[in-house]
Amino acid sequence: VSRYKLIVEYDGAPFQGWQRQENGPSVQQTLEEAVHGFSGETVVVEGAGRTDSGVHATAQTAHFDLPTDRFDASVVMNALNAHLRAHPISVLSAEHVPDDFHARFSATWRSYRYAILNRPAPPAIELGRVWHVQKPLDVERMRAGAAYLIGHHDFTTFRATQCQARSPEKTLDRLEIERVGEHVIVKVQSRSFLHNQVRIMVGTLKLVGEGKWTPERVGQALAARDRRAGGQTAPAQGLYLTGVGYD
Amino acid sequence: VSRYKLIVEYDGAPFQGWQRQENGPSVQQTLEEAVHGFSGETVVVEGAGRTDSGVHATAQTAHFDLPTDRFDASVVMNALNAHLRAHPISVLSAEHVPDDFHARFSATWRSYRYAILNRPAPPAIELGRVWHVQKPLDVERMRAGAAYLIGHHDFTTFRATQCQARSPEKTLDRLEIERVGEHVIVKVQSRSFLHNQVRIMVGTLKLVGEGKWTPERVGQALAARDRRAGGQTAPAQGLYLTGVGYD
Repeated sequence: VSRYKLIVEYDGAPFQGWQRQENGPSVQQTLEEAVHGFSGETVVVEGAGRTDSGVHATAQTAHFDLPTDRFDASVVMNALNAHLRAHPISVLSAEHVPDDFHARFSATWRSYRYAILNRPAPPAIELGRVWHVQKPLDVERMRAGAAYLIGHHDFTTFRATQCQARSPEKTLDRLEIERVGEHVIVKVQSRSFLHNQVRIMVGTLKLVGEGKWTPERVGQALAARDRRAGGQTAPAQGLYLTGVGYD
Repeated sequence: VSRYKLIVEYDGAPFQGWQRQENGPSVQQTLEEAVHGFSGETVVVEGAGRTDSGVHATAQTAHFDLPTDRFDASVVMNALNAHLRAHPISVLSAEHVPDDFHARFSATWRSYRYAILNRPAPPAIELGRVWHVQKPLDVERMRAGAAYLIGHHDFTTFRATQCQARSPEKTLDRLEIERVGEHVIVKVQSRSFLHNQVRIMVGTLKLVGEGKWTPERVGQALAARDRRAGGQTAPAQGLYLTGVGYD
């Protein structure tokens, strides 16, 4: 067999998330159909991160196998993009990888970006691509709150109640917040994340930025190890999977 | 009467352009209906720039009159945005202005941005918001070509053959080109532009960036005063009206 690694960009809006679903189109299924379209093969395309419905990716990583190596990686990329023309999915790169490469299990880190549009007027050009927060956010306060979350913690407060992960302990390697014009951008990196972890962290830090919470309350919420102690889950439309790392 | 000035953002994709049309929805008509929705008044909303079908705006300027001044400008902004919720149009600001302010005739400059996505893979997240150019563009060469266009010229080569302007002479005050990651961004400013002027200039400079034209040929094309001497009209989806100035 011949294994291919893909880096994929997509607009999450029209999809029920990455993973194949009964109730609507998924990015995974759309990619699998594109592989079938050019190769005739029925494959499973494994992704590094199972993004939820409405979540975008600028650099999701995935892999799949073909029975022969008769397709150059560049041919695979162009053929996939030709078959994906009707969908907001784009294959940014394709390469041959060894058989022991696994997009999900070989990954050593994931990075996400969360985009908030922080102004009185709603988004028009970025509709469906940002979270609209009208009240001015104090980025310095948000950073003070974020400091409690960086490092190794029990993130029970920041996981969806239906999260399937065996352990709620994760190491958050990076949590940066910056203002870029009307936008507040949150960038995070970790080996892996709990279900909705990024969105609950953002929903909580937004309360700090608005002045409704003190920064210290983020530390108290973390220590509570209780989802009810955290803020709202920020909407999917502001979240982007921006990178996946491998050793 | 009470005159209101609006600054408006919109995604041009679903519209037949700014101006009211028989054959489909326009930004102007949608705004006029929103004014009617909250005030009950039938008004004309005058825009500074009549953007073509598919062209976006981050800061179109417009004005309209109401018979009374019973609405605060902030109420007008919020009421319009409430009525525009189903459309990718957002009123960024509203203010009372004197009766002699005219969005179009009082304007002393317009600025536009043109966004090229310059990479092998097609756009997914920015589908409909950029021009996809696969061949790497040499920005330095494009700048050398652009230098011929800055200043006062007869821009006949860079106007649509159906352009209605009385004179083909315009003064191009600014034409800047920069690379930002995978994007090549062209920024222009002038008192006013001929029909399709920005898009034809970009379509021509793209030929220079790809190496198909020398920079000098831009000067020769300008001197020819003939639309057939210029490059293609770059697609509408990459163009944004970014500002309108008033003394």
